[in-house]
Amino acid sequence: MSVSFREISGGITAPQGFVAGSIFCGIKATNEGRPDIAIVHSPQPTVAAGTFTTNRVKAAPVRVSSNHLRGADVRVIIANSGNANACTGVNGIENAKRMTRAAAAALGLKERQVLVCSTGRIGVPLPIEKMEESIRELTGRVDASGSRAAAEAIMTSDTFPKEVAVEIVVGGKTVRIGGIAKGAGMIDPNMATMLCFVTTDAVIAKEDLQTMVSASVEHSFNRITVDGDMSTNDTVLVLANGVAGNERIQPGTAGGDVFQRALDFVTLTLAKMIVQDGEGVTKFVEVQVNGAASFSDARRAAEAIAKSVLVKCSWFGQDPNWGRILDAIGYSGARLREELVDVYYGGLQAVKGGVVSKTPFERIREVVSQKQFTVTVDLNLGDAEYNVFTTDLSTDYVVLNMGE
Amino acid sequence: MSVSFREISGGITAPQGFVAGSIFCGIKATNEGRPDIAIVHSPQPTVAAGTFTTNRVKAAPVRVSSNHLRGADVRVIIANSGNANACTGVNGIENAKRMTRAAAAALGLKERQVLVCSTGRIGVPLPIEKMEESIRELTGRVDASGSRAAAEAIMTSDTFPKEVAVEIVVGGKTVRIGGIAKGAGMIDPNMATMLCFVTTDAVIAKEDLQTMVSASVEHSFNRITVDGDMSTNDTVLVLANGVAGNERIQPGTAGGDVFQRALDFVTLTLAKMIVQDGEGVTKFVEVQVNGAASFSDARRAAEAIAKSVLVKCSWFGQDPNWGRILDAIGYSGARLREELVDVYYGGLQAVKGGVVSKTPFERIREVVSQKQFTVTVDLNLGDAEYNVFTTDLSTDYVVLNMGE
Repeated sequence: MSVSFREISGGITAPQGFVAGSIFCGIKATNEGRPDIAIVHSPQPTVAAGTFTTNRVKAAPVRVSSNHLRGADVRVIIANSGNANACTGVNGIENAKRMTRAAAAALGLKERQVLVCSTGRIGVPLPIEKMEESIRELTGRVDASGSRAAAEAIMTSDTFPKEVAVEIVVGGKTVRIGGIAKGAGMIDPNMATMLCFVTTDAVIAKEDLQTMVSASVEHSFNRITVDGDMSTNDTVLVLANGVAGNERIQPGTAGGDVFQRALDFVTLTLAKMIVQDGEGVTKFVEVQVNGAASFSDARRAAEAIAKSVLVKCSWFGQDPNWGRILDAIGYSGARLREELVDVYYGGLQAVKGGVVSKTPFERIREVVSQKQFTVTVDLNLGDAEYNVFTTDLSTDYVVLNMGE
Repeated sequence: MSVSFREISGGITAPQGFVAGSIFCGIKATNEGRPDIAIVHSPQPTVAAGTFTTNRVKAAPVRVSSNHLRGADVRVIIANSGNANACTGVNGIENAKRMTRAAAAALGLKERQVLVCSTGRIGVPLPIEKMEESIRELTGRVDASGSRAAAEAIMTSDTFPKEVAVEIVVGGKTVRIGGIAKGAGMIDPNMATMLCFVTTDAVIAKEDLQTMVSASVEHSFNRITVDGDMSTNDTVLVLANGVAGNERIQPGTAGGDVFQRALDFVTLTLAKMIVQDGEGVTKFVEVQVNGAASFSDARRAAEAIAKSVLVKCSWFGQDPNWGRILDAIGYSGARLREELVDVYYGGLQAVKGGVVSKTPFERIREVVSQKQFTVTVDLNLGDAEYNVFTTDLSTDYVVLNMGE
């Protein structure tokens, strides 16, 4: 299949009609001047879509944004780092609303036209008065090349800002999709939080955008794991302002397919960046399970491998410990017949029919010594498959997450 | 409730009529003279019960023993360390059977009167010929004080042998229960394996013994976790030879209650020893969840906390990171209302109604600085509760499990 999009620069402000920016507020005492509030703004009307954490403990901004997302014509995403506004009770809800009101007032919008995200320390009230002031100021300090500034302002323990953008042609019109994200940084006492904001100048109906975003998240952010924990704040927000003037994109059409593939590229690229920037990560590993009896079996097996502390420690040690992989799929709940299971590292078969293969151990060790490799398990029971992107578990990870 | 049993010495040979011992065979090249085969033998007829790993990848000895356990009058448990006989195919099954045959032949028994266990390296054939010779020799080298020798011979990365025994009085007769265990040692390329052997001189029917053992395992070995992985070899075996001559123990009677409590003490003591001897462990933590809407909710919440890599890293760092605990119960699947959740470290309340309590942070940190503490979560939704014994996750754990 030919690639029908091309990667461009500009991140979240690559699509026409979006501006972005950041400001230093000083939310976290130790932040030392690094911008900590980001804004993305579309002066034109938009349709919006999003997905949120399924954690039953939800941060206040998640509750407010998922509510606002139901309305029409969202124009703004406002986001801060340094404080997650999670586990903050009714006061936290009020503070999240005040963030949206501050942006709305400054831009002549309604509160519900503003979405809000927070990431950082939990259980601590936001310094809302000074944030309101910063947000007002920030609304006047945006421009059409502000993607990088916004990407940097949402970083917590991320070591690099995460941006991507692509361009496609739909019915002769150029359409762009851009995105920024922050990763699962969890330096004490922060929460693991993934935030992703995507903009597009495509013409698309709200319902169709939501369908396509949900599908895209299912194949990207829902398939990454660093430590198996799921945050109270995880959020993906997408705004489409229609400035490109293309024929409306609809799922199941040629234009819809091209748009979906481009959107998938944006979300998967950002998702992989998050994994690669995980704390203490030395290896980036794709786990691919084939031949499962059902989709749910394939997912269980892949996730059990990707989340096994023992498997991840062995990768850190460059050790192709296939026994731990068999062990993990064995307790995953996936149906299997031990005597049918094959395991591969890269292209090398380590396990054939449930027992060790003839591949020399040293050759398999060479694969596991690389910074990036694929582990493939074939259950040889059916046609279902699933993949997960994961990491090793290093001593640095433990040190980074042990707190003060 | 008054304690109705007293702890005694003697481990698995404390009950009358059992002999045990060990021998050095040299199963693992690096073993350097440490005994690696253990035997427990009852010259008198017994009834036997047991529980096995629920991992769908099962080691050969698990398959053979669960089959033999269905028969009557088991007399022997034979177990080796240094090789798990897992992922070894049909040849592995034959080798497990040959171990039982070697013991049976030397003692004039039938193959199915012998149970077999293995722990250690996986995917490697047993050196069965020399093991057969060692087993034959071992059957003549047992005695009524051989518990410690047997406990030592099944150790892998355990740092101390695990033994316990208790004495109860049932209808005027003295009845004893003794046990040995090995823990979840996982030095590469070993598997995490828990083995536990229990003997008793009680008179009890096979079916009742199985019922009581299953209940006991549910409250002990099923409630411990070091790294969340479940082995292909986990096995609990119990032999009762009736030598005490007590009135037959039956569940639901006064004697049955005393026996169950004593058995629970034996299994829970061994289970706790396994957790405390986990690799790189610096903290022993009991996680208690109360007030859940259902038993399954309580278990999900407790296990999510006990297995969270982030929570365990924070404990290693002496950091009372209650946010990670709320996060873990949030994704556990347990029903909860965030605004009702309370969290305690020891007796100190850290979270009240979903938000931070007024307890000074430094006082809570003191609790988490101890080698042993309890974390209690009250969901305040119902009456169901569950507890799990777990550990921190240390840099040493990663180093010990990263392989060569």
